[in-house]
Amino acid sequence: MVYKENYPSKLLEEAVDAISSLPGVGRRSALRLALHLLKQPQENVHHFATAITRLRDDVKYCSHCMMISDDQVCSICSDRSRDHRTICVVESVRDVMSIENTGQYNGVYHVLGGIISPINGIGPSDIRVRELVERVAALVSPEALFEADADGLEGSAGEVILALSGDVEGETTSFYIYRQIARYGVKVSSLARGLGFGDNLEYADELTLGRSIVNRQIFKP
Amino acid sequence: MVYKENYPSKLLEEAVDAISSLPGVGRRSALRLALHLLKQPQENVHHFATAITRLRDDVKYCSHCMMISDDQVCSICSDRSRDHRTICVVESVRDVMSIENTGQYNGVYHVLGGIISPINGIGPSDIRVRELVERVAALVSPEALFEADADGLEGSAGEVILALSGDVEGETTSFYIYRQIARYGVKVSSLARGLGFGDNLEYADELTLGRSIVNRQIFKP
Repeated sequence: MVYKENYPSKLLEEAVDAISSLPGVGRRSALRLALHLLKQPQENVHHFATAITRLRDDVKYCSHCMMISDDQVCSICSDRSRDHRTICVVESVRDVMSIENTGQYNGVYHVLGGIISPINGIGPSDIRVRELVERVAALVSPEALFEADADGLEGSAGEVILALSGDVEGETTSFYIYRQIARYGVKVSSLARGLGFGDNLEYADELTLGRSIVNRQIFKP
Repeated sequence: MVYKENYPSKLLEEAVDAISSLPGVGRRSALRLALHLLKQPQENVHHFATAITRLRDDVKYCSHCMMISDDQVCSICSDRSRDHRTICVVESVRDVMSIENTGQYNGVYHVLGGIISPINGIGPSDIRVRELVERVAALVSPEALFEADADGLEGSAGEVILALSGDVEGETTSFYIYRQIARYGVKVSSLARGLGFGDNLEYADELTLGRSIVNRQIFKP
């Protein structure tokens, strides 16, 4: 049943309007949430509203990698034990959290804040490609290479990992970025594609399956 | 995959805490919503927070029926064309909205604000039964009956419709209320139980099916 738009209170209607503007929240769920909030202690509701407002108003973005941060430089970029010559390029903050949760990566990140998508009107200048190019340029500058030498890294020019999604937009963005940074002579890699752990062969698409055969690896039992 | 609790920002973590306190919203959805809000224009987020705060702070409850309202008396109770001698007793604000949306009811309401549930520690004094009893008493007072007479209602004592859910707690609450108001001589009714429109006989439970046979109605094609 669809609720018709006759709310007993203008305030309720406005709250439902606001809540249902969230992605994946319909007007009926929004009504349920609004009535839930109405039953909560006043200070809880104030705390809820404040937490959201403060997030939007006060959150900072790391000046190096554009990751969400409470400081000018995020905890990853300020961690001296991480490899600052390996930059993993991701679309969003959530991707950084996902990769961090794997515990398998010790480099730094670059958050693009979007993906090139002509259909949605998002071009290269709408995402942080320029900032990435600047970082890569700095990585291969004579001073940086000299420093790396001193660190015993044998003048390694560094690596950029393109960790974007495997759809058309991700591939387009990867290709665009590759063309922008290839001239600096850094190693450019992308995520391994293949069958997921636990995936059934029967349901894998041909492209993925094809790639996992071509890129097959030595079996280590 | 479950996100481990390592957020890149304390503000983000606090917003996720707040959002995931909503019913039916897990931490992962909460993160998605928080990151969505981060991308919205600042004034939209402020509007969102304000709408929720104002709902909690400024909403009123009708002094007659306890329905959510922007005024002291709700639009239903202040509507002279409605039958004020028929009171439909419901658990929640949402029930009023549901019944109003049927367009089949022209009386007034009484919102209990809960249901008697010993397992959840909710007793008769936690819901608005006393207020209902007072309304029923006023309905059958000599003055009210005199007024009704003048209105050509032939001194009708009025009716209380118990529109509570059909589970144990609803039935318990209905029975409790019945015992409180029966002595006033009002007519007490409850919602018709039976097969829903479009319901398949095969899947109906025995109680419902039994009741719909006993309370069968003349077929009107």
